[in-house]
Amino acid sequence: MLDPIKDELQRVEARLRETPLIQEADFDLVAEAISHLFESGGKRVRPALTLLAGRLYPSDPDKLIALAAAVEMLHTATLVHDDVVDGSLLRRGNPTLNARWSPGATILTGDYVFARAADLAAQTDNVRVMRIFARTLMTIVSGELRQQFSDPQIRQTREDYFKRIYAKTASMFELSTEAAGVLINASEDQIKALKDFGHDVGIAFQIMDDVLDFVGDASQVGKPVANDLRQGIVTLPVIDYMAAHADDRRVAEIVGNGRRDDGHVLPIVEAVRASGAIDRALDEARSFVQRGQSALRSLPDSDAREAMLNLAEYVVTRSY
Amino acid sequence: MLDPIKDELQRVEARLRETPLIQEADFDLVAEAISHLFESGGKRVRPALTLLAGRLYPSDPDKLIALAAAVEMLHTATLVHDDVVDGSLLRRGNPTLNARWSPGATILTGDYVFARAADLAAQTDNVRVMRIFARTLMTIVSGELRQQFSDPQIRQTREDYFKRIYAKTASMFELSTEAAGVLINASEDQIKALKDFGHDVGIAFQIMDDVLDFVGDASQVGKPVANDLRQGIVTLPVIDYMAAHADDRRVAEIVGNGRRDDGHVLPIVEAVRASGAIDRALDEARSFVQRGQSALRSLPDSDAREAMLNLAEYVVTRSY
Repeated sequence: MLDPIKDELQRVEARLRETPLIQEADFDLVAEAISHLFESGGKRVRPALTLLAGRLYPSDPDKLIALAAAVEMLHTATLVHDDVVDGSLLRRGNPTLNARWSPGATILTGDYVFARAADLAAQTDNVRVMRIFARTLMTIVSGELRQQFSDPQIRQTREDYFKRIYAKTASMFELSTEAAGVLINASEDQIKALKDFGHDVGIAFQIMDDVLDFVGDASQVGKPVANDLRQGIVTLPVIDYMAAHADDRRVAEIVGNGRRDDGHVLPIVEAVRASGAIDRALDEARSFVQRGQSALRSLPDSDAREAMLNLAEYVVTRSY
Repeated sequence: MLDPIKDELQRVEARLRETPLIQEADFDLVAEAISHLFESGGKRVRPALTLLAGRLYPSDPDKLIALAAAVEMLHTATLVHDDVVDGSLLRRGNPTLNARWSPGATILTGDYVFARAADLAAQTDNVRVMRIFARTLMTIVSGELRQQFSDPQIRQTREDYFKRIYAKTASMFELSTEAAGVLINASEDQIKALKDFGHDVGIAFQIMDDVLDFVGDASQVGKPVANDLRQGIVTLPVIDYMAAHADDRRVAEIVGNGRRDDGHVLPIVEAVRASGAIDRALDEARSFVQRGQSALRSLPDSDAREAMLNLAEYVVTRSY
């Protein structure tokens, strides 16, 4: 699936490991930490989308690679700060930077990764790309702030959920494909189709993440089942379950009263699974993928378009 | 001195208080906090430099105002994160955001201010400006990382000091004037002169800050005398003093062994003052200002140039 962009992905990897301005001796620790951030098994879905979308028309490969690296850098920067904000000690089963360093060193390393993302975005030499980039960063951070300051999660509606996963995930998928369209000088209609595709695949991707949190094997996912719920975060399967079981107080016990042990969590996991909420969430993810795929089919047929259609399919079939 | 740019500065103030994407009800707290950040008495030296430099040639005022606001936003974002990293509870005598909110909420608010700075920078519609902007952010953050990871401050040399204050302060002054030069389409020689002016004034500004930390009135400065030293940070007056008193172990006691009470700090403050180190630091600041002023005199004479020369003078005569 990623064969057409194998070489470019390797060049993106190389760029992700560069740490300009911090290569002196007393910085080895930081350079190593940043390099380590990019070794802990990211799927590189976002840069792959950028590189594939970028192949729809001929363009300067260096700029596309800078954009793809910028997108992954931005994603990684948000993860570094998220881990400090949430106090997370593990990500994909590996210790976070936050687990090893002081909050100060971790915050600043995140800031460096943000700065580097902006620096890479600037290397596209394209004002419109940089505008989209800055706006996406604002969307992501505003979403995180909303979560910090909003009402208790138990009152979250479907609408709140879709707003949150747009800010958290789909906005960056949208950036990956829309900005690539801008960079290759696609027509406005085509840029819009690419943006819609990124949006829909991003929403599906996050629904799948939230489903896997409910059904995944803890050893593969690298965190306990229903980790979100244990963090007080209500996702689509739970919202769907609650819509039909408004009188079940057990979710409120977990989310509102902080009873986050297996004794409280596992019964509700069972109840959600048994309710059919997981299948309905999967159906929703699949229909977002289908909608994205039909937006993409308005673009000329090509190997890259085919690979993007397949990548969208992978998003809703992946088990991890 | 700021009369020629009075209206523009007001427009910058208005832009600093805008909080796009977070204007909904549940965000009032964040919008208020950001507005509050810009009310706590910043001197607006950086945006003033941008606006004055921007008057040397006719250009689009909206873009200059966006740039000036971007520069102040970037400066403010670094302060918000600095306060979390250092655990500071007061800034200019006012409680920091960090003193009132969780680290998580403070980190994310800082991220929002960074994102907004990038967003404003993007509104200049100028790729070169945005490149300088991203590079400056990397310089600032790398400097902060160096401080987190470097050897104990007691071994800092003059060279380390100047490197640190370049990253911390002069790089952003340089951005303020260089990017304005780019935006008004000044010649490369003129952009270089503006950049040098910003650099030199920035270095002088930080030396003055460090001197005021030693001689300032605590009630005016809003923090105790020799606050840097109490934080373990060695500045020019101390480095100068130590050069002539290498056998005085008292600085090492404070910085290395954490004896940061008045009993340990005040005698060394007296010794530094009595050594002439303060006057020598002021002389250095003044010669940076003079060097900057002569770089600026290569530009055509104008009211704006005159105001910039005066602003440079103010930097080394201000008492707070």
